[in-house]
Formats: sequence, structure tokens, C-alpha cells
Amino acid sequence: VERISKNKIKFLRSLRMKKNRELEQSFLIEGEKMVLEALQVCPEIVKEVYLVKNSNITIDFKNSYEINSTESEQISGFKTPNKCLALLSYPTIEPKKEDFTLVLDQIQDPGNLGTIIRLADWFGLTKIVCSKDTVDCFNSKVIQASMGSIFRVKLIYTDLEEYLKNTNLPIFGALLNGNNVYQTQLPQKAILVMGNEGNGLSESVQNLVNQKVTIPKFGGAESLNVSIATSILLSEFFRS
Amino acid sequence: VERISKNKIKFLRSLRMKKNRELEQSFLIEGEKMVLEALQVCPEIVKEVYLVKNSNITIDFKNSYEINSTESEQISGFKTPNKCLALLSYPTIEPKKEDFTLVLDQIQDPGNLGTIIRLADWFGLTKIVCSKDTVDCFNSKVIQASMGSIFRVKLIYTDLEEYLKNTNLPIFGALLNGNNVYQTQLPQKAILVMGNEGNGLSESVQNLVNQKVTIPKFGGAESLNVSIATSILLSEFFRS
Repeated sequence: VERISKNKIKFLRSLRMKKNRELEQSFLIEGEKMVLEALQVCPEIVKEVYLVKNSNITIDFKNSYEINSTESEQISGFKTPNKCLALLSYPTIEPKKEDFTLVLDQIQDPGNLGTIIRLADWFGLTKIVCSKDTVDCFNSKVIQASMGSIFRVKLIYTDLEEYLKNTNLPIFGALLNGNNVYQTQLPQKAILVMGNEGNGLSESVQNLVNQKVTIPKFGGAESLNVSIATSILLSEFFRS
Repeated sequence: VERISKNKIKFLRSLRMKKNRELEQSFLIEGEKMVLEALQVCPEIVKEVYLVKNSNITIDFKNSYEINSTESEQISGFKTPNKCLALLSYPTIEPKKEDFTLVLDQIQDPGNLGTIIRLADWFGLTKIVCSKDTVDCFNSKVIQASMGSIFRVKLIYTDLEEYLKNTNLPIFGALLNGNNVYQTQLPQKAILVMGNEGNGLSESVQNLVNQKVTIPKFGGAESLNVSIATSILLSEFFRS
């Protein structure tokens, strides 16, 4: 197995920045489980694999490079670097035509976005529509939290006002002062919009919402984490 | 305002370890919002407040100490240290008698536990029963994710086998091969047990479960994050 070059390390580090990922249409994934899943789900986009020497991980892939622990630290986006990493092209997911669409407005926390991608995948969604200022889905922390669902769910970054103005579907928005979601008739064909962690839905999006829904509160917590609120609302749409 | 002493810093750092927190029955909270909430919800347990000089945070509390950025780094449990911290005694929450009880078996991730505490608080639960090897609720990352709900929800660490053997309530367990939760009659008086992130419910607990329930999967994700699964199941119990 060939050793990794200094230039390659520099290149991989550069992919920590969104603009470089977009330029190269490439991103890094980390961890044996994730790399194995990529090789299984979408082998055609796996370009190179990097393995720490003596790590007891065996991955049979033609373009594999050997790295040491220091190099793994240099490449990894995490404080505890992984012993197995891979360089991937952006996935080419062809979303299905779906009745229900999840829309995210300015989600900032990578962990939240990754968790929501995994959740959407669980409920069988193949796309999520996001405002342009939602955190990039190829950020290492998003990838990690998505647990491989990033290979199956396409994130479409677009102008939400435009998008919502051009739909005929009823638009449901999660707000703190909406109708009790448990007592709301939820159609199969619908759009659900979830807002920013701190500020909720932006005003321009709120103005386009047809039905405000709220998860009723029985206790003292001021709010729910956005991935938690998304899970409860998605479950309500899909249980019916 | 008095300056903090070297010994005090050492003491506060020692509270990063669970055994020291238990010895002192004390823990640290971080961030202006959290400290203000503590002063509002449970002022009687706030012992001392530490404020970074010139941080523009004004908190009127008698036992306040001035710290500098270096000291805040030394005290804080986070990579990005907070400008405002406080030392608290363990809360003395008197849980209400509740029909429904959430039970956690070996939850390991502090972020998950904190999110579940916040979620339980949202649904009005005042206690959570945990296996003894569940992550400690006074861990700084749990506190942060709980967003102040730690002041309202009591965590009871106990032998789950014992606890579950001594209840007359039906015990629901979240498993991947259970009955569709959407088609299961969920009583108001019940216990719901959630298992470990990687391994699910331990065998001894599984043997005590009366009804296995599952969130049906429509897509490709292998599993759901435990805080997400807990939120969907809690929502199902509370919506009825």
C-alpha cells in the first residue's frame, strides 16, 4: 500500500472548508463503519481510502493509502481522529417523487442537521430542502451524526421563499404558538418547515406558512431541541 | 468583587470527576443563561458565581468571584470556555407521583442524556429512573444539553432489575423487533425503558419487558438516535 503524500494531506485538510469542498465536489468521511457503508451503498463515489498502519482494519479497495497517527490527526475533523478515512465525490442521489417534504430554515448546528438527515432517512424521505444559510451537509460533524444517511438523502439548498411560493401543497410550520399538533388534521401531501435553533422560523418563511403547529408542553422546559421537535412532528405526519 | 483563589480553581477542576462531585454533592454550571435560570428556579442551591472580568455580564449575587479568561479555561469543561459559571449544590427535587415513568438503561452519551432530560421536562416528567451505569447527570455536557431542565427533573440511579421487578405497571421496551408503536394501545400508567446507544436494552432488562415496541422504519437508516427514539415514543404515550 502506498504512503500518503504531504500534498495529499494538505488537500484533504483543505476540504474542511465548504468552499473547497464545493470546488472539488468532494468530501471526507471518517470511521470504519462509515467507510464500509459508503463502499456498500455508493462504491462509485469512493475515490480513495486512508488507513492508519497496524490499525487492524482491513478494507479491500484499490486506491488505498497508508497513514500514521499524526497524519490521521492532521486530516481528521475530530479531536479523536479516526483510523480509517475516505475521500468521496458528492453523492448523486436522485430523490424520489414524494408526497411529503421536510424543509429546514437556517439550521446551524451540524449535529442537529446530521440527526435530522438520519431521521428523514428512517422515515423514507430521499430529500430535504434547506435554506441557503443552513449548515453544509458535507461538514464532518453533519456526516458523523447522519450515520451514513447522507448517502441516501439529498439535501437541496435553495431560496426558501421562492420554493414555498411555488408550491401548491399546504405548508405546515413548527412554532411555539401554533395549534396543538395532536389535534390537527395532517394531510399526506404536505410540507413541514422547521426553523433555526435559537430564533425559529424567519419572518419571510413564517408569512408563507399556512398552518402553525406546536407540540404541546406539559412541563417546564422552554423549548425542544430542533431535531427532537422534527422527530415528533415527522412521526405525527407518518403515523396517520 | 473578590478574585478567585488558586485553590478554588483546583477545587472546581476536581468537580470534572464524578467521584468528586458526589463527595462534595456539588457541580458546575456554565453560561449566562444557565446561571440566570438557576438563580431563578433554584436560588437556594447556588453557592458561588464566577464571572470573567469585562465580560459585560452583570449578575447580582453575593458570593461572586472575578476570574480572567485563562482561569475560565482552567475551570470550564468545554473547549470554548464560558464567561460565566456557577457552583451549585445538588438540586433537591421532590418528584411528583406520576403515572408514567421513563427508564434509561445504560445511556452513555452525555448529549443524549441531556437532550432526554430536556424532553422529559417538556412532557412534564419530574423524574427519570436510570441504570447505575448510565452517564452521570451532573457531567458538564449533560448539564449543557439539558438546558436547565436538570433543575426540574430528578435522576434516580438504581438497580433496574430490582426496580422493574417491583412494579405493577406494564413495562414497555423500545426494541428493533417489537410491535408497531402506532398500532399499540398505550396505557396512561406505564413504564417505558430505553436502551444503550449501540446495544439497546440489556438482556436482564429485556426479560422484564412486557411489551416490545418499535417505531416502524420506512427508509434505509439502520437505527435512530436514542434521544430521537425516546421523543417519538414519549410523544405517542402523551398524545393519547
